[in-house]
Amino acid sequence: MELTIDILTLFPEMFNIFDYSIIGRAKNKGIIDIKAHNIRDYTLNKHNKTDDYTYGGGAGMLMTPQPIVDCIEYIKKSSKGKVIFLGPRGKTFNQSMAKKLSKEKELIFLCGHYEGIDERIYKYIDLEISLGDFVLTGGEMACIPIIDSISRMIPGVLARNESFTEESFYEGLLEYPQYTRPECFRNESVPKILLSGHHDNIRKWRRKQALLITREKRPDLFKNIKLSKEDKKLLSDD
Amino acid sequence: MELTIDILTLFPEMFNIFDYSIIGRAKNKGIIDIKAHNIRDYTLNKHNKTDDYTYGGGAGMLMTPQPIVDCIEYIKKSSKGKVIFLGPRGKTFNQSMAKKLSKEKELIFLCGHYEGIDERIYKYIDLEISLGDFVLTGGEMACIPIIDSISRMIPGVLARNESFTEESFYEGLLEYPQYTRPECFRNESVPKILLSGHHDNIRKWRRKQALLITREKRPDLFKNIKLSKEDKKLLSDD
Repeated sequence: MELTIDILTLFPEMFNIFDYSIIGRAKNKGIIDIKAHNIRDYTLNKHNKTDDYTYGGGAGMLMTPQPIVDCIEYIKKSSKGKVIFLGPRGKTFNQSMAKKLSKEKELIFLCGHYEGIDERIYKYIDLEISLGDFVLTGGEMACIPIIDSISRMIPGVLARNESFTEESFYEGLLEYPQYTRPECFRNESVPKILLSGHHDNIRKWRRKQALLITREKRPDLFKNIKLSKEDKKLLSDD
Repeated sequence: MELTIDILTLFPEMFNIFDYSIIGRAKNKGIIDIKAHNIRDYTLNKHNKTDDYTYGGGAGMLMTPQPIVDCIEYIKKSSKGKVIFLGPRGKTFNQSMAKKLSKEKELIFLCGHYEGIDERIYKYIDLEISLGDFVLTGGEMACIPIIDSISRMIPGVLARNESFTEESFYEGLLEYPQYTRPECFRNESVPKILLSGHHDNIRKWRRKQALLITREKRPDLFKNIKLSKEDKKLLSDD
């Protein structure tokens, strides 16, 4: 097993999403293991509650500390993973965080719900990550793409022909336009150069297109690119 | 129905995630409808393929235009929704996009897979959205939190006591620390002020904490906040 992921959630069924596609295949191959633990199974509340009113007033319900902390301690009997909480105070998730976390052997994710978690739970959290500047119904919705992004970087998870995107992304450029069959679809043809078999011309065309698309769509990425002499020539050939 | 969402995907089962929790309840109430269409059902390829090799060479497989465009045209017989593609050229998703899209009556999402889509498909796309600067195994992983974030803003989706977070987020501040029962958990007590019943002191304490947490964790948000006289006083009282 390359990576074992334990998740604390009120909705373990949501993680059935990882039974499909690339991550499902990696689970079947024994490369990653994803275990969702129901926080509700750990509550000592006689009505099975995991939330309660906020001290000091306020409309929302908060997750109580007892079931979460007990569940973390249960998981820690078999995992040395960092406890990661999906929340708005965290650093925004990006590719370098995905790369770093993909080198861990074990990870524990805590998905919050309702209006948040009791502040005293933070003591048991090692790292807080935010998916972005938007509000979700629950931490599961952030946890799922983050687990996906981390898992796909583990050796063996992607097949050889699935790992291409990364390189372009790492270079800080958006992908050049790509075409597949048919050669003509609804009167639109594949650019002739791609059918020419002239590898160096194809490479230059793709590089130029990637530069142009990045400059147009993501000027924030473009300004960080160190343009080579060839890049400058390609861009001035307009 | 407040919002009808049609999704083009190779993994319609992944969208069972919306059978649970808040979005599941909204579906049952008839507030939103989420329909996942299998792109593979629309391919005319005799081997049921939806991908093919890239013209001009390259390791990855691309999604072919025919099944996607035919599926979009089928959906458009009953939907006037914008076609939204989840991809890296798009603007990064945020709360104001969620708010804007939550006012639409119909939306159509296209989830890409493999190494991308044939460039000619872009002609049928109205809007491209990126979840963030990281790579995912498929567009589904971006589509799911985006649909969640849009759906929760539709009137009636959240119960009254679930809608609190937003306000704080809209003001550009992180949430203040919150506490629920028990009053003492593993030797850590709820701050006394929250038990005081003195509403104005509680309000000031919370405001100060929210300012301090935002300043520490999200200086990028903090610098956009217009501090009131009271805010400045609270911060100088350290």
